[in-house]
Amino acid sequence: MAHPFDEAVALAPRPDGGFAGRPHPAYANMVGPFGGVTAAQMLQAVLLHPALLGEPVALTVNFAAGLLDAPFVIQARPARTNRSTQHWVMELTQADASGGQSTMITATAVTAARRATWSASDAPMPANVPRPQDIARHDMSRSGSPLAVRFVERYDIRPVTGPMPMQWDGAEADSLSQLWLRDEPPRPLDFASLTALADAFFPRVWRRRAVRTLIGTVSITVYFHASAAELAATGSGYLLGQARSQSFFNGFFDQSAELWNEAGHLLATTHQIVYFKE
Amino acid sequence: MAHPFDEAVALAPRPDGGFAGRPHPAYANMVGPFGGVTAAQMLQAVLLHPALLGEPVALTVNFAAGLLDAPFVIQARPARTNRSTQHWVMELTQADASGGQSTMITATAVTAARRATWSASDAPMPANVPRPQDIARHDMSRSGSPLAVRFVERYDIRPVTGPMPMQWDGAEADSLSQLWLRDEPPRPLDFASLTALADAFFPRVWRRRAVRTLIGTVSITVYFHASAAELAATGSGYLLGQARSQSFFNGFFDQSAELWNEAGHLLATTHQIVYFKE
Repeated sequence: MAHPFDEAVALAPRPDGGFAGRPHPAYANMVGPFGGVTAAQMLQAVLLHPALLGEPVALTVNFAAGLLDAPFVIQARPARTNRSTQHWVMELTQADASGGQSTMITATAVTAARRATWSASDAPMPANVPRPQDIARHDMSRSGSPLAVRFVERYDIRPVTGPMPMQWDGAEADSLSQLWLRDEPPRPLDFASLTALADAFFPRVWRRRAVRTLIGTVSITVYFHASAAELAATGSGYLLGQARSQSFFNGFFDQSAELWNEAGHLLATTHQIVYFKE
Repeated sequence: MAHPFDEAVALAPRPDGGFAGRPHPAYANMVGPFGGVTAAQMLQAVLLHPALLGEPVALTVNFAAGLLDAPFVIQARPARTNRSTQHWVMELTQADASGGQSTMITATAVTAARRATWSASDAPMPANVPRPQDIARHDMSRSGSPLAVRFVERYDIRPVTGPMPMQWDGAEADSLSQLWLRDEPPRPLDFASLTALADAFFPRVWRRRAVRTLIGTVSITVYFHASAAELAATGSGYLLGQARSQSFFNGFFDQSAELWNEAGHLLATTHQIVYFKE
């Protein structure tokens, strides 16, 4: 039986060079699909493209409108191909009520044929973090959680610090969370699933305010600090994720996050800006 | 006399809806123009567009190729306009040797009509930083600096911590720098100049390795945490900038940075991924 994530990113090539897909019910969010899987689908259109050079280095996905539970088409265009890097422009459209096509998502990506170079990390994995096996899995079905939505069943999340508020009492806290996470059921890591995992943190404004604020990611960027070999070596193990905000200002807050594998390799850093309703 | 930055971002509307411009000699880098001003020009095409809704919230600029010292055209397209947000796709082209137009830069932006909401910061300005008036300006003309290029004359930079290495001896250090910076000559801050300032940090790999490595920004994202009112209140004062890397891996490193005004308001956070040659 196929993993739901593989079903979700299984795009079908079209005669016009585009890719056809649709939101997957296993990754449904409160309204529309989980944005992490949408971002993964945007990247997948690049990864499946016959002109692809190299592996993903950077991805930016802009959520222009909430996806309908309906078919979509992703066009991916290599805007520039250099000797070792390639620049992509992507756009996802859906049929609108007037019979036309509406832009729902825009995106860009950079891929590159990497060479081995001097490498180093300035963001070591946090020390003294309990192993995922020693932490209880977060029970999303708990009454009162605003995350009682389908897609969270597709992630095994084990909070280390900064868990989802237990009481929505408006008690302000810092915005930092650390957690172990992986696909559920477990699935070998690849660039598409790493992209989705980069968006799997619960909204920082909930942690910061303990208020159930309506939110929506507007733009997410993922920088990949690993090649396919490091992702393969990670296999279906847990990732340690760490996320925090820097600014909540007049309707938008940011989130920056890091994702290490259990061996301590920083696989990705990711940033997003999120709309929130007062 | 016009400020060189105003000259640099003075794009001319074209009959086809695009904007014509060219690299400004006052912002020349070692090869081609300073990318921060190119990013500002991409944003300016949105800010000058007659369909603009609101103010910038997010900007991502991908440097697909080194700009030629020649005219360019920027097309900015509002891919989606919602009630309070707008999603932009931009592309910069230049004439190539074969007489066609080549894509040199791709970009996306999100603009929004912000409303006043609960606001907070989780990234306070570093404490105990000396005032800019009490720090000597960095002398870029000093022998041996790889930054003896035109554009650095357009910035008044006062290093607080993590200065440019004095000796290029390969002594590894951390990648953190703090510095005061502003336009030279002083110029009232706006979204375009803030975008350029977000790219004004010297390359983190130089700080990290003390090796004069060839580098080039591949993609930069800027999140704006201020409206025009906060930028106007900042005036031509200094900004405190703080930049660091998290990963240097097989040819690419990231940089994350924050920019506060002297009153301590976090105006922007910014992230980029940079190619480096071993």
